[in-house]
Amino acid sequence: MATLPDAARAVVDSAALAHLATVDADGSPQASVVWAGTDGEEVVMASLGRRRKLDNIERDPRVVITMETDRVGPGGLTEYLIIHGRARVEAGGAPELLQRLARTYLGPDVVFPAMEDPPPGYVVRVSVDRVGGVGPWARP
Amino acid sequence: MATLPDAARAVVDSAALAHLATVDADGSPQASVVWAGTDGEEVVMASLGRRRKLDNIERDPRVVITMETDRVGPGGLTEYLIIHGRARVEAGGAPELLQRLARTYLGPDVVFPAMEDPPPGYVVRVSVDRVGGVGPWARP
Repeated sequence: MATLPDAARAVVDSAALAHLATVDADGSPQASVVWAGTDGEEVVMASLGRRRKLDNIERDPRVVITMETDRVGPGGLTEYLIIHGRARVEAGGAPELLQRLARTYLGPDVVFPAMEDPPPGYVVRVSVDRVGGVGPWARP
Repeated sequence: MATLPDAARAVVDSAALAHLATVDADGSPQASVVWAGTDGEEVVMASLGRRRKLDNIERDPRVVITMETDRVGPGGLTEYLIIHGRARVEAGGAPELLQRLARTYLGPDVVFPAMEDPPPGYVVRVSVDRVGGVGPWARP
């Protein structure tokens, strides 16, 4: 497992959305757009419902996450983060993680999910294999 | 081939970045973040250099593109577009397409790529199989 460089961690901990790519059973790419944060050296995401990405991760843990930054590099191009990693699915913990992430994505006082007795859902944990894209974490 | 709904076309034609997922030869997901636009009913992207995504597309044309919008839906969540399609690679045409896209992504008067005699590169054309995500193009 690789360490997440500080500049990359700052992007994952920001309100930038995570574009998560997995591979479907038929070998085709699958993608979703989700909230993400960090827990130690791992990237974490949550799902209240049982979604296809969870089945995909349990079949093949290799994932790629792309995230845009609000940083514009030389030439006016938006910098972005690419994380290659291995994911695993944990049952439960989704409402708690979503509540934590909602403070970043929606605002410090937001209650989320806005439902009584939400289902326990699933937490996806990604250990980072390598970090790329365009940004200070990828400069030579 | 599916028709691109007007609201989805507007996102592809905007300055939103395209997160393009393909599948590597070893079956793992691969992703890049690129400029995109439309040409008729197809989504088009350009690459000056020979990149892995081009090899991936020539091996398996199935791709997924995700794009964020600047539209916020009910509950404060950012709406996003997911396009499943089949891509093909054309040799040449990259500088011309990049110049067209640069007017959207960088500004109407920008000259791009900023080099003399750029290589012809490659254009990726994606025919749309289906459109999803969260937005007016995906509402029942």
